[in-house]
Amino acid sequence: MTAQRHFHEELDRLQARLVGMAGLAEEMVRLAVEALHTRDAQLAAEVIRRDTEVDALEVEIDDLAIQLLALQQPMARDLRFITMAMKIGNDLERVGDHAVNIAEEVEHLIGSAVVPALPEIEEMVHISADMLGDALDAFIRLDARLARSLGRRDDRVDELHGNVFRILLTHMMEDPRKIGAGMDLFLVSRNLERIADLATNIAEDVVFLVEGRNIRHRHDAGAEAPPPAD
Amino acid sequence: MTAQRHFHEELDRLQARLVGMAGLAEEMVRLAVEALHTRDAQLAAEVIRRDTEVDALEVEIDDLAIQLLALQQPMARDLRFITMAMKIGNDLERVGDHAVNIAEEVEHLIGSAVVPALPEIEEMVHISADMLGDALDAFIRLDARLARSLGRRDDRVDELHGNVFRILLTHMMEDPRKIGAGMDLFLVSRNLERIADLATNIAEDVVFLVEGRNIRHRHDAGAEAPPPAD
Repeated sequence: MTAQRHFHEELDRLQARLVGMAGLAEEMVRLAVEALHTRDAQLAAEVIRRDTEVDALEVEIDDLAIQLLALQQPMARDLRFITMAMKIGNDLERVGDHAVNIAEEVEHLIGSAVVPALPEIEEMVHISADMLGDALDAFIRLDARLARSLGRRDDRVDELHGNVFRILLTHMMEDPRKIGAGMDLFLVSRNLERIADLATNIAEDVVFLVEGRNIRHRHDAGAEAPPPAD
Repeated sequence: MTAQRHFHEELDRLQARLVGMAGLAEEMVRLAVEALHTRDAQLAAEVIRRDTEVDALEVEIDDLAIQLLALQQPMARDLRFITMAMKIGNDLERVGDHAVNIAEEVEHLIGSAVVPALPEIEEMVHISADMLGDALDAFIRLDARLARSLGRRDDRVDELHGNVFRILLTHMMEDPRKIGAGMDLFLVSRNLERIADLATNIAEDVVFLVEGRNIRHRHDAGAEAPPPAD
């Protein structure tokens, strides 16, 4: 096998690991919110357990990338691709952490008698999980157009997060027994909003990889901005 | 100038940028919390403005690192050092975002009539800002012992965050007018807890760089764990 062919096989392996990691992180997010709706403590525990798989994948991706950098000494676009793979691995590991946070909030909420129903959270999880999948697709196919489509959806998730804040505030004001559960649900919403931000970060890196234009930090200042005060 | 000497000068430059970035991020965190205590909207706005400097430094560090990887094709430890510099740059950029989040919460809180005083937040900011400085020192001096000292302090910050949650819950239950401000303060505390986590991440990477032992993900599952439910 030529060194060149070997190099491309290793790049493919790196890509495959990232796709696997993204799928796993996405599933964890969906399951964590499913556990919220079904009040399923076992499902929440399952999400928390799977975090070790995500962590192991990040370490594997880092090792693969460093090996490629050391042995193959790639240039230009391959170099950017490899360093970006490490960044994406880091972002996906954080997505896994956010899914774990949601699962932990769910474990609290299961014991609570008064949990307001919030269809907004349902919509947030659909959008943000799809964004994750699309961000990875955009990276694999070097599709800047798909990558750019994430910004708009991120705005929608931010808007929903703001709505959740206002709705919860009303619930908590009306019935102080809901304050504990309200804070837990607010954190669930917050974690979903952060997941959408991380997907957007990945997409912005893809645009940079494809077009050489840096659109990062366009959203950052407001990325974790609090919802409008009432 | 020899290529070797040039390489080491560039490594020094990379290091200097990281130190500058860490100092800036640390200052933003301290100023954001000072703005909370003095209810100083101008100071909060100043923190938000400085985020563009942090963002620019991250881009500069990435470019420097990629240039070093492309032109110098470094091996072994230098390679790990450079890839780690990129990770640290990424972590510090997130610290800047958390400082901005705190400043934005402060902007809300300034309009609020009832803001509970929380010495716990004061302690959290001191510990986490010191942790940031020490994490960078450990990286520069390759001091694994200093790096390991961060884990204990991170546990203390987590404990304080749990206390803040319980104290705020009590305030909010007693006086529903405090619910809005309580949620804002909870997010301030949450952002400080995340900053301590990021400093701990950096320190864990340093231990890995020095000892080759991976102690990452020891804290991660609980990194953003919710405080104990009451």
